[in-house]
Amino acid sequence: MAGHTIDSNSALVAEKLSARGYVIDRKITIGDDFDLLVREIIRLSEDSQVLLINGGLGPTLDDLTAEALATAAKQKITEHQEAIDHLEHWCKAKKLTLNDANKKQAMLPETAKVIHNPIGSAVGFSLTLNDCLIICTPGVPSELKAMLDDSIVETLSQHLPLQHTPYTLRWQTYGIGESTLQQLINNLFPDWPEQVEIGFRAGLPLLEIKFIVEQTANIPLLEHWANQLKQVIGDAIVCEGNGSLPDTVTELLQKQKLTLTTAESCTGGLIASQITKVAGASRCFEAGFVTYSNLIKQTVLDVPKETLETEGAVSEAVVKAMAEGALNKSGGDYAIAVSGIAGPDGGSEEKPVGTVWIAWGHQQNIQAVELNFNGNRRWFQIMVAATALDLIRRSLLGISEEPRYFKRRKVR
Amino acid sequence: MAGHTIDSNSALVAEKLSARGYVIDRKITIGDDFDLLVREIIRLSEDSQVLLINGGLGPTLDDLTAEALATAAKQKITEHQEAIDHLEHWCKAKKLTLNDANKKQAMLPETAKVIHNPIGSAVGFSLTLNDCLIICTPGVPSELKAMLDDSIVETLSQHLPLQHTPYTLRWQTYGIGESTLQQLINNLFPDWPEQVEIGFRAGLPLLEIKFIVEQTANIPLLEHWANQLKQVIGDAIVCEGNGSLPDTVTELLQKQKLTLTTAESCTGGLIASQITKVAGASRCFEAGFVTYSNLIKQTVLDVPKETLETEGAVSEAVVKAMAEGALNKSGGDYAIAVSGIAGPDGGSEEKPVGTVWIAWGHQQNIQAVELNFNGNRRWFQIMVAATALDLIRRSLLGISEEPRYFKRRKVR
Repeated sequence: MAGHTIDSNSALVAEKLSARGYVIDRKITIGDDFDLLVREIIRLSEDSQVLLINGGLGPTLDDLTAEALATAAKQKITEHQEAIDHLEHWCKAKKLTLNDANKKQAMLPETAKVIHNPIGSAVGFSLTLNDCLIICTPGVPSELKAMLDDSIVETLSQHLPLQHTPYTLRWQTYGIGESTLQQLINNLFPDWPEQVEIGFRAGLPLLEIKFIVEQTANIPLLEHWANQLKQVIGDAIVCEGNGSLPDTVTELLQKQKLTLTTAESCTGGLIASQITKVAGASRCFEAGFVTYSNLIKQTVLDVPKETLETEGAVSEAVVKAMAEGALNKSGGDYAIAVSGIAGPDGGSEEKPVGTVWIAWGHQQNIQAVELNFNGNRRWFQIMVAATALDLIRRSLLGISEEPRYFKRRKVR
Repeated sequence: MAGHTIDSNSALVAEKLSARGYVIDRKITIGDDFDLLVREIIRLSEDSQVLLINGGLGPTLDDLTAEALATAAKQKITEHQEAIDHLEHWCKAKKLTLNDANKKQAMLPETAKVIHNPIGSAVGFSLTLNDCLIICTPGVPSELKAMLDDSIVETLSQHLPLQHTPYTLRWQTYGIGESTLQQLINNLFPDWPEQVEIGFRAGLPLLEIKFIVEQTANIPLLEHWANQLKQVIGDAIVCEGNGSLPDTVTELLQKQKLTLTTAESCTGGLIASQITKVAGASRCFEAGFVTYSNLIKQTVLDVPKETLETEGAVSEAVVKAMAEGALNKSGGDYAIAVSGIAGPDGGSEEKPVGTVWIAWGHQQNIQAVELNFNGNRRWFQIMVAATALDLIRRSLLGISEEPRYFKRRKVR
């Protein structure tokens, strides 16, 4: 509750359970306040079919779950032999002696049923209150994960068998905003069926589009309408499911047995680092150049001094010469080159902060475009890197139409 | 609620508000269920002094906050001119036309007071229900962050003035673990006063140490004990307050009027991109080389072919030759060079995944060390980049003692 820790456990629970068709109604986080904890347990038990409690099962004094649950259910806390057996077994394996602090973990509400923890000392347990099944799980992420996949899902499905499993299709897209897309769907597909739910998640730089149907029988309907949308915005789809622009670009390069090189000024190595984050990148990436100063653009990439002087570093001629230089020096097949003004300083009236020239292509055909990404420095760098990778992706896929975002971003 | 996103916003809110002395009672996350949202808003308004709602202010149909709040407060939704003005101004700056989807963001409950959003299209707003001040904020993390620091804290402090503000001192450290540090403090300072609370936040790669006193009168006490600790671990402190290794390194380089160059194999440009993320990096960084393949190490950095063949790419001789090559080609003063095995493939018995050689220094004195960071690929890259920057930091500060982490990481 003080912000020191980011909660990833609840996302793990939600992911595991929603993939099996359970709907997560809400998540509640409470600090070490015993009375509030008891009140919330009672209220949620009256309001839900299942309540999964995570954390507070450990051996220390601020681990309150068992006691709060016993109070909420008006039960005594008793020592459970099954939990003692588990603790003895666990201590033996770790060559520890069972101490009193550890024994606290076997003190559970009277009617609690022990749930096996395959890796940690604290067992999970369940009990029923107000017809709600309450399942208590340990807060250590690895233990929670180990228990979710088998014992917890089993306990849950006995209490709440599923009628059906929802089906989800996800696309990662680049270059269309959430509101543009919503408007486009409204305008082009007024008959979009309500059974096929659409959701968005705006990441940086990708926008995820999610199609969901509740019934397996509606999967063909989902596929039909998703395909209709694909006819319109297919070129913006980077991949299905999870993935990123660097993932897709390295995959395409590897399939086509091509290599890529980078010549970066304003992105300062970000494009190269995104590519080399992908395992196996060495199969399609051999060299990258971070040529931040004008002198280095000359000495390392052979950009002519005169071009730099007459055109300036942020110009079509320079960015094309950077791409050519990178291809020559690396022997790579494809090149990306970027030169721009990331800010906050360095802008002028003619070339304000946010201006960037991007060149992309191969020896026979190097194209270039001038765009503007006016925002803070980090956002500018992320957007320029993403755009450069997207232009390579389009090139590798043979998409000839101009990307939709050129309209908004092009300087002239 | 499906687990695709890990919520970092609530941690940010908790951190910012608890730093100012506000106590966070509970956090609740609710999916796109309108009735549940309304019910929870009513219940929480009866039970709390302030309710901060995050997210759901966007232009799409699944953004329900304004409508749910209006329903809870039994108010109509009306178009707020102040919000329209903001949207028009925002669209103009972005060279967009204001469409109907966007206009939805100006539809707010009747009594809502607009809270300015300095970077995004959706304004925040507040209203009072059951004596509880409800503050609605946008879900985009950068927008939330921008608003928390000024407009939201102001709105909050008008409704709920604080009796006192706690005082916090923060250090960013590199290379000591949380439990090691806790043990060290317990052993060396058994008399540590309870008025000076210590907190940790483990980030990647830095560990934040936080000292907090509740009363202004105890600030000298805090400073005394923080200084005691500094005597012991001072070399690991990267900076006070916020900051990162690249921030500190670029600051030191600029102060000493020195430039840095990088030659990266296994980190693939990550070090260069971290440096150039810092505004004004061009004053201390001119060139970086991503030499991923052996051939490129030869052709671009003049690493001798024989050295690569006899010693292998992950060796002291190669990484030192890379650093020398980068210094020669860039004319820089200081160099970092790294070559290692990021995995998941490419390891051998002699050089397992996680092995890395790091060279650092200037023409007259290039040092090198072999370390092991055995973990996943991304963690390896982040740790190697941080270690390389930390070694440069120590060099620039003239710290001669070996870093504490060498003991654990050194291969021999």
